[in-house]
Order: sequence, then C-alpha cells, then structure tokens
Amino acid sequence: MATHKVRVGITGFGTIGERIADGVNEQADMEIVGVCDAAPAIPVRALIDSGQRYPLYAANAEGKEKLENAGADVAGMHEDLIEKVDIMVDAASPGIPAQNKSKYESAGIKAIFEGGESNEIADVLFNTHANYSEALGKNFIKNLSCNTTGICRTILTLDNAFGVKEFTSLIVRRAADPSETHKGPINAAMPAKVPSHQAEDFMIVKPEISAVTVVVTVPITHGHINSTQAVIKESANRDDILDAFSKEPRIKLFKLGDGFDSNSTIFDYNRDLLNPRGDMYEVPIWEETVYVKENVVYWVQMIPQEAIVIPENIDAIRAAMQTHESAEEAMRETNRYLSML
Amino acid sequence: MATHKVRVGITGFGTIGERIADGVNEQADMEIVGVCDAAPAIPVRALIDSGQRYPLYAANAEGKEKLENAGADVAGMHEDLIEKVDIMVDAASPGIPAQNKSKYESAGIKAIFEGGESNEIADVLFNTHANYSEALGKNFIKNLSCNTTGICRTILTLDNAFGVKEFTSLIVRRAADPSETHKGPINAAMPAKVPSHQAEDFMIVKPEISAVTVVVTVPITHGHINSTQAVIKESANRDDILDAFSKEPRIKLFKLGDGFDSNSTIFDYNRDLLNPRGDMYEVPIWEETVYVKENVVYWVQMIPQEAIVIPENIDAIRAAMQTHESAEEAMRETNRYLSML
Amino acid sequence: MATHKVRVGITGFGTIGERIADGVNEQADMEIVGVCDAAPAIPVRALIDSGQRYPLYAANAEGKEKLENAGADVAGMHEDLIEKVDIMVDAASPGIPAQNKSKYESAGIKAIFEGGESNEIADVLFNTHANYSEALGKNFIKNLSCNTTGICRTILTLDNAFGVKEFTSLIVRRAADPSETHKGPINAAMPAKVPSHQAEDFMIVKPEISAVTVVVTVPITHGHINSTQAVIKESANRDDILDAFSKEPRIKLFKLGDGFDSNSTIFDYNRDLLNPRGDMYEVPIWEETVYVKENVVYWVQMIPQEAIVIPENIDAIRAAMQTHESAEEAMRETNRYLSML
Amino acid sequence: MATHKVRVGITGFGTIGERIADGVNEQADMEIVGVCDAAPAIPVRALIDSGQRYPLYAANAEGKEKLENAGADVAGMHEDLIEKVDIMVDAASPGIPAQNKSKYESAGIKAIFEGGESNEIADVLFNTHANYSEALGKNFIKNLSCNTTGICRTILTLDNAFGVKEFTSLIVRRAADPSETHKGPINAAMPAKVPSHQAEDFMIVKPEISAVTVVVTVPITHGHINSTQAVIKESANRDDILDAFSKEPRIKLFKLGDGFDSNSTIFDYNRDLLNPRGDMYEVPIWEETVYVKENVVYWVQMIPQEAIVIPENIDAIRAAMQTHESAEEAMRETNRYLSML
Repeated sequence: MATHKVRVGITGFGTIGERIADGVNEQADMEIVGVCDAAPAIPVRALIDSGQRYPLYAANAEGKEKLENAGADVAGMHEDLIEKVDIMVDAASPGIPAQNKSKYESAGIKAIFEGGESNEIADVLFNTHANYSEALGKNFIKNLSCNTTGICRTILTLDNAFGVKEFTSLIVRRAADPSETHKGPINAAMPAKVPSHQAEDFMIVKPEISAVTVVVTVPITHGHINSTQAVIKESANRDDILDAFSKEPRIKLFKLGDGFDSNSTIFDYNRDLLNPRGDMYEVPIWEETVYVKENVVYWVQMIPQEAIVIPENIDAIRAAMQTHESAEEAMRETNRYLSML
Repeated sequence: MATHKVRVGITGFGTIGERIADGVNEQADMEIVGVCDAAPAIPVRALIDSGQRYPLYAANAEGKEKLENAGADVAGMHEDLIEKVDIMVDAASPGIPAQNKSKYESAGIKAIFEGGESNEIADVLFNTHANYSEALGKNFIKNLSCNTTGICRTILTLDNAFGVKEFTSLIVRRAADPSETHKGPINAAMPAKVPSHQAEDFMIVKPEISAVTVVVTVPITHGHINSTQAVIKESANRDDILDAFSKEPRIKLFKLGDGFDSNSTIFDYNRDLLNPRGDMYEVPIWEETVYVKENVVYWVQMIPQEAIVIPENIDAIRAAMQTHESAEEAMRETNRYLSML
Repeated sequence: MATHKVRVGITGFGTIGERIADGVNEQADMEIVGVCDAAPAIPVRALIDSGQRYPLYAANAEGKEKLENAGADVAGMHEDLIEKVDIMVDAASPGIPAQNKSKYESAGIKAIFEGGESNEIADVLFNTHANYSEALGKNFIKNLSCNTTGICRTILTLDNAFGVKEFTSLIVRRAADPSETHKGPINAAMPAKVPSHQAEDFMIVKPEISAVTVVVTVPITHGHINSTQAVIKESANRDDILDAFSKEPRIKLFKLGDGFDSNSTIFDYNRDLLNPRGDMYEVPIWEETVYVKENVVYWVQMIPQEAIVIPENIDAIRAAMQTHESAEEAMRETNRYLSML
Repeated sequence: MATHKVRVGITGFGTIGERIADGVNEQADMEIVGVCDAAPAIPVRALIDSGQRYPLYAANAEGKEKLENAGADVAGMHEDLIEKVDIMVDAASPGIPAQNKSKYESAGIKAIFEGGESNEIADVLFNTHANYSEALGKNFIKNLSCNTTGICRTILTLDNAFGVKEFTSLIVRRAADPSETHKGPINAAMPAKVPSHQAEDFMIVKPEISAVTVVVTVPITHGHINSTQAVIKESANRDDILDAFSKEPRIKLFKLGDGFDSNSTIFDYNRDLLNPRGDMYEVPIWEETVYVKENVVYWVQMIPQEAIVIPENIDAIRAAMQTHESAEEAMRETNRYLSML
C-alpha cells in the first residue's frame, strides 16, 4: 500500500458524485482532496450550506461566479484540483467526462468514469466481482450502471457458489430520483426494446454467462426492482441459495413478513437507521421471493440507485492505484470502512 | 344454436360486471335480461343517469332503497332476475358469489364466476384457448383472472404454433383501477411471494406447460404489464413469432416506434378510437420487445385489466350453454360481435 | 344564420384539436371540412385506424409522407384546406399557429387560437360568459386556457347572480395528460411564482373583478382541481349558491357522499356514461365543498383539461361568424348539440 | 429549571414517536428514559438493528414476545416505564393514547398527546406561538396536527408583526408517508368537505383570528403544501413580509430560482445536508410565492409532515414541566438544541 493516502478528486458533485466523495472519505487509506462542479445544484448548495466539508473547485469561470453567488468559498479551478490528485472520479453529467479525459491524460493522473459514459471512454469496463484483476493498474476505468452492478453482485455470488449458466433479469426501473421533477411518467409503465443494454454490459465483464435483460420504467423514485431467474450448474435448494446470499456482505436479506413490503419501506428503514441520506450500499433481496425450481433460481432484489455503485467505485480506485492485488482484499477493505458486514 | 337468445343476467354491476353486460349485449345470440347490484356505486349511478339501458334489480331490500334513492327504477329483486335467466354471470365483490351459488342451484340455472372467487366455487376453471371442451355443458364455470387470461392467450398462441415447454412471466401489476382511490401504494414497488398464484391457475387449465409467475405491484392504473420468456419446442425466429401473434384476433401488435410508449398511451389511443370507456379486448404486445434467443422467446405485453376478461366470459357462456361445440367456433362468434378481427 | 353550414377546418389534431373537431361536428349549423397535422401522433393514428371520419390534410410535404406511411389517405395540403373553409381552429403545438396566421390572413379566412399562444396573436382574448359581444365578427379570436375557462364559468355565474368583487383560486394542476409520459413530476408538488398567469388573463376578459391565482403542480393526469374563494356583493346563503351553480348548464354538481370522491372517479363515471373518450364538457363542483362565510363563497371544482374548452371554442366560431348575436343564444345552441342540459 | 433533567418516556415509536425521542434527547435538560411499543414495525426494527440507543419497553405481553422475536432486549413493560418518567409523550396509534391516559393519571405523571387524538383527551390544545402560557403546569396537553402547527407558525409570525384579521389556507395534502404502502390514491386528487378541521383547531388556540381551511389530498409522500392568503391589519409590503418570515427560526425561506422547485427537492436537500432521516424542523416558504395585494398576503409553504411537530412537542414538555415560563424562552431553548437558528 502507498505510504501516503490516495489523493482523490471528484468532478461532478451530483447524486452520485457526492456519495462517492463521502464513501471515499470514510476509507482509511484515501482522502478527498477536493470536489468540483459547474453550478450550485442542490447537492452543491447543501455542501456549501453545511460548511463545505470538502474544498470546492469550479469547473470553469462562469461556474466559479455561480458558486460564489451561492455562498461558496471556491478553492480553485478544475485544473488546480487535477494537479493535486492521484486519481479523479468523474461523475459529471454524461458527455462532460469524455471532454475532461484529455486533461487527465495530460496531467498524468488516473480517472474513474460512471455508467452514463460510453464504454469507449475507458481501458476497462469494471465490476469488482467480475474482473478486478483486469483493472489493476489501469489508467481509465469505467463502472457499470446501478442495475448492472446489482445484477453482478447477486449473479456472481451464485456463480461463485453453484456456477451460473445463464440468466434473465426484468428491471422494473424507477423513472427518476426524488428531486428529478422534470422526469415522467406520472401514471404509466414504459417498456423498452428487448434486450436492454444491461445484459450487454454484463457480458462484457463476464462473458462466460449468457444474459438477457428487459426494462419497464415505472413512476417510482426510491429504487429499481430486479426480478431475476438464473440457471445454475450445480444442484442447490432454497436454503443453499439463501445461505450463499447471506454470506455476501454486499447483499442484505429482508423479509416481506417483517414488514419490508416495498422499496420505499426499505428506504424508510434506512432513514430510521440514521444512515446518511437514508442510503444503503447493499442490494436488498426479499427472502420470500427466493424460489428454486429444478435448476432455476428466482428472486426479486432492489437496487438503491443513488448509493449502490459507491463500493464498486471505491474498489475501482483500489484497482487503478493497485492498493490491493485481489478483489477479495479490495472488497474487504472497502466494506470495512462502509460498515458492510 | 338455441332457437331463442341465451337469457343472461349479471350480478354485480361493477368494473367487470358492467363490461360483461355490454359485451354480452353485443352478441346476436344473447340478451341481457337484467343486471343486479346492492348499492349505487359509480357504474350503477352511470347506468341510472344514462337511462338504464338494462333493467336493474336489487340484491336485497336495503339495496333496493339505496338504488331508488339514487333515482333508479328497480325492476325487482335478485330472485326475480334469477327466474328470468338461463345463466347468471356473478361478478359481485369477492365472497358474495359464493353465497349466491345455492340460489342458482335451487333455481336450476347455470352461472359464471370471476377470478376473485376461490377455484372451488366452480366445476371447472376455464380458459377458452386452454380447455373449452372441458367446460361444455357445465353448470358452474370460473374464469381466470385478468393477468392469467392474458398469459393464456399469448402462451397458447405460441404453444399452438411451436409448442411451449415452460415459461416465466413477471407481472408488473397495476395497483388500482382509476377510481379505486383507497388503494396504494403511491410511490413504491411491492414484490409478492414467488411463485404467485397466476402460474398455479395456469397449470390447472394447461397442465402440460410448466409455469412460474412473479408479481411486483406498482402505482399505475391503466393496465398491468407482463414480461414473459417462454421455451418453445420447435425452432422459430422473430418473424415467425410476430406472425403467430399477429394471426390471433385476441392479440394486437403495437410499435414503440409509432409512439405507443406505455400502457397509458395505448389507453389514450383506445379513447381516441372512441371505444366505449376507452376499453380494448385484445392483449397488446409491443413489437420491439419480441426477441428470440435460441429456443427462448421474450416479449412484453399489456393487460387492459378492466376489459380483457370479457371475451372469455362470453366464451364461457357459450361453453355452459353449448351454443358452440368447439373453442374455435365459440371464439369466432364472440370475436365477431366484439369487433376483434 | 348563414344559409350554408359554417365550414370549419382544424389545424393540429392533438388532444384539443380532435375534441374540437368532434364537438364542432355535432353542431347542426357547422361542418368539419378537414383536419390537418404534420405527423401521425396518437390521435391522428386513431383517426386513421378508425376510418378517417374527417378528410386529413398534411401540414407539409414531410408530414404528408409520414401520414401516408401510417396508412392515411391524405386529401391535400394545409393550403388546400385553407381554401375550403370559412374559419380555421388552429390547435397546433404552441408557436406553430403564430406562423400559420399570415396564411389565414392572405386567404381571407378567420381563425380561432388556443390558450397556449401569446395573447398578441388575436384581436380579442375570448370567453363566452365574459365578453362574447367583443368578439362578434372578429377575424382572430384566442380562447382562454382550460383553468381560466373553468374559473370564468363559475365566477361569472356567481357574478351574474350576486355580483363578485374579487376572488382567489388555487389551482392544483395536473402535471400531464395520460399519455404525456415524458412529463413529471412523479412524487412531488411544485409551486409556481404567485400570482400565476390565469388571474391576469381573467382580468383581461373581465376587468371589473379583481383576481389572484396560485398554481401548485401535482402528479395526476385526470383533471386539475381549483379551490376558489370569491367575495360576493349581494347576500347569499349556501342554498342560493348551489341553486345558481345548478342552473348553469356548463357546471355540474357532484356529491362526495355519492362516491364521487376524486377527479379520477368523475373521469371513470364519464367513461361509464359511455361519453366519447370518457370526456365531459361541464365543470364539476363538489357540493360538500360549497361553503359560505359572511360574504365569501368557497368551493372546489374540477377542470377536465382535455375537453373543457370545447364549448367555448364553438362559441368563438359563432362569435367570429356572427351566427348568433348574443352569448346566451350562442351558448344555448352550442350546449344543445353537446347535450349540456 | 429543575435540578435534574426532565425524565421523558415515549409511547408509540412510530414515525412521530421516534422523532420526538431523538429531538428530546438533544435537549440538554431532558433525557429519554425509555420508549415503548407493541410490535416491531419498521422504526422499532431500525432501533433494534442499530443498537437500541433507548431502552425499549413492551406495551403488553404479546408485544414483548414480538419485540424479542425481532431481536430486542426488552427493558420492561409500559407500566415499568411509566414509573420512571416525569412525563410521557404518547404518540401511539390514534385511540390507544386515550386508553393509556388513566394509567398516567393513576401514576401521577403528565402526558403529551398528538394531533390524531380527539381534543377532549387533554386539558389544553396547544401551540407554542398561540397559547404557551395556558399550558403552563398542565397535566395533559395535546399538540396540533402537522398542518395546523405549520399554519400557526406562519400566521402567528405575521400576526405578531402586522396583526392578522383572518386567513384561508388550502392544504394540498400528501396522502401517505413513504412507507405507508396501503394508502392511496395513486392518480387522483381528493377534495374534502369545506371547511376542514384544521381551521377549527386553529381557532381554538387562537380565537382572535378567523380561519377557513380547505383540503385536497394528492398522491405525494414528501410533505404537504399550504397555499395561504391572510388579511393583515397593518400595512406591509412584500419585503416587510419576507423580513418577518426570515426572522422566525422555525421558518426557512427557499427560492424556486435556486432550484428548490418542489417539496421533494427540499427533502433531497435535507438528505444532502446529512440531517438525520433527511428531516427538517422548519416550515419552508418559497420566496417567489410571497405576494402582497393591498392588505392581503399570499404565500406557499411546505409542511414536512414527519418532523414539523417535534419542536412544539418539546415546547409542550417545557410548558407542562414549567421549565420555562414564557413561549419565547421555551422556544429559544428548544430551537438551540435542534439547531434552528
């Protein structure tokens, strides 16, 4: 491990960027040097209004003025932040990170990109469980989107335990985050072309497993739902499956019978746990939905879309910076500081 | 065919009952003798306020008073209606039809029940495509619920063309009809225990095909969505599948690319077709969701929950009354009068 | 009255345009010569798929091709339609009618515009109850938007009976029509700057009455809700108010106690009345919300946003064409053919 | 002030009870001795799963078993808790507190009740701004409901500054909290009889000001919206009003122009401030909705329904226990520990 903490910058302090910042900042071997944005959207305002726990940099001159008008103490420009970090997580609006990449190359720093970018932006499309070793030491790594990340966690947990031949996942997609008030639909369910992109991305990081994903978008805001059926290679009964899921720290089992009857109820539970923002990093699985018929395993899981990719983003930093040589070591460290048991 | 029209009564003039009445009334060989309810809920008020196109009977003395207070001209009591009909479709609130059954037995009339009753109420659980001949001449027939009816239509269309070995259907369930204002959830998706009852019911009417169904309830009102994957026995490509679907009059293909992007959009289209109530009897399938991977066929369909069971209810009357000896003949006649081409 | 029927064209066969067409077509003294659009959106597809009850014209060459690809029999171009009509109702997407106006001027025909256009487009901003006589014989008339139209109906009914000094109306705005799937919010209420534009428009057509309107947008699709309080000049009790409302054919009273507990329930009632599209032309008022405290009258009304402006659009044609010299005569004729008693 | 901390118990650890517990526990002069519930609903599960920061008591024997099955360390029964406290805040489900009251009387402890109980349960219906002194030393105090509490704050702030003669408030009511999945409506707005109970309650605590309230319930979960118009006695312009609002610590101004475009956006901002549960204690007012026309002030405010009554509950404890003799002193102390500036 490096003798100094990994110096991390965040570009784009939005729904994902702010959570990566807070997650990275919990890691004993990493520090947030600064965060950068172009305008005082809600997360940036909250950062400013709560005392700017991270130095705030401006994406450009116009942005600097806007941030200062919102009361910010601006520490410098994007270029200044780039000079101070080992690695940048660029979670700016889709399209912007592709424009920023050349800056990172010129400055000789590494960068992590998010699911909204095209796969070409990075040297490797990354998921910890699937292909950590491929990302070791890479300069540019792209994470999977939230649904594909959650699918990797559960599918690869089963694959590790029993072997998975193929799977189908229906994604009941939350149409918007709580404050994305411009997005619909209001009272409609919207199917997309089959297969959707998640299966394709999955098969890039794990080509051995055949996948199909289907997306139907619905008017909810507190998490996607995935209904999956996977064909396993070894024989397993329902208890075996529950046992495998329960041993993976990034999965958490909930019971309908305990009152966890919906994604919003789990969200409220996380608020009542006093988790920051009511977030959770794990993928919830409802126990009563776990069902085995011959060699096919069925289950329904939730994707807390705002926070689920945070652990894998931190793992990606570990891979790029080679702080840990194996997925297991990297995850153990990330999990520890994010309190995933 | 009988020399007189089949005399049909409707008990329970709610969302389903009123639509069965109007569908039956379109049939050249059937007539609605009367409809019966216990209180002036919205459909009954609309019937009264638009001139009572059917004679209205009261379920009991208290109901008679309520109906008259709402302006109804009450033609008699439930018992009076029973005496005048050959067959009763009992679509009253779940539980009531089971209480009414002995009246029908005593009077020597036949009866059709709906999906909300327990299967024990009837001699046969019925779906036209699946087991019409089993219902021929039976006294008590129970229809499948709306989702299972829609699943039968598409699965059995494929089974007829290519053979279906097994299937899984994820039901994205609309939580309430438009005026069911007491029902939630508002901003949540609610999974149910897997497998859900629809697969069980399906396998009763078609035991040769293995089925699993999964239900997630979401806050929408204009139709359920089913995402299905079926394993077929014979080889078929996407065009073959589309061709098979397009030939079944009770299925209708829509294109996302033509602007039919959701269940509510299809509902609005039906309103613009000036269909009564904006209803449709067919199962819509979105063409772009039809996908074939080896021997597995995927597609997403909509279930217009208010009207979809009407054709099969009419078929059930045909089976009970033996107006037609085969499913094909019965459907041809029903379809003709419901304008399903 | 003219010896021939008024020849009316419709430009923009969308949610409003299609309903104006059907409403005009019910009038004994008017006929729809043709309707025009630029693309096969859902209402146009439904028109084509149900047999093109009106001749369909194309807005431009590209549109002609699109319409023909959707199966349309295109009768000609917009210019051709213009030559055949006495008056055009231009309900195309906001901004387009302003571009079309010069065509109407050149051709010497009159035109009616909708609420989405800027007030400058017309010679007069129009509401039948407020200023029919000002619009007599005018070439270009603009209708009020749906909420302001509904507010005019109830406020001016009270003004006629008791005198209204001033009023405030809170508009709980439906955020989207059922098939406007791109519009949010999903789980949020969005206030707007106070006062909103509706009051301003009202005071243009009725300057004697002072008005303030407030808008909060919420995630519903079947009608706006207005909560109004009006200061009346003469003394009146609750029964007087209900009596005045009940005598206006364009207002309809509903009781919460009869089960009409929401806008969606009234929508479902209209579907069950078998009204085309489940539409209604009247403004519903819930009786239990009518309350009088000293000289202030309170009530809550619904605005069926898709259909409410149709009667006033037809009245506007009457004013422009001078088929009737007074608001009372015009409304009586319009109401008769729209079955508003 | 008492030489020992006020010993407070909480009965009913639900949405309100858990927040009162956490708010009380922040007060330097109060301590939570224990909390009590009858079953492991979500808030109780979260308490247990996060280490039981408060001793947990069982409402009854059956409840004890349920709590223990959920992993709780049960400290005793309700009666045991009663013996250890000076005052109980009973926020159990409506109806239960009325049954518990005799226990509190027998034990000689005081109690605070919530808005869902009937007014007869207490010696005084309480709001700090309105009638703190009436509650001094009282044994049984009932708080106002969330909307009426918020209305008191803003109306009485204006009353204090300019005098308020009368007001009307339209309450756009959130139909359910996020995890109340059984509650609807899904796509409907539901008016209630006018006037609603909030005005009546307001006039009990502040009889000098005449009030009318109107309620329309809509499908949202993150806060009610109130649109109010108040007639003031002294002359004031918009800046005066904004100034008065800005000086009240329990009100917080937000700008639509800063991106705070909805109740859900403000909720997300509170999450990003890392407030526990994403809660806020203040009443948000949108600046752009503050409007003055002659002597009438208009504004739109939000009611964060889960947390807004917490400060007044703590004030009520202060009044009952006479820790502070005036509303101003009580509020200053409560505000300080709740970080309301």
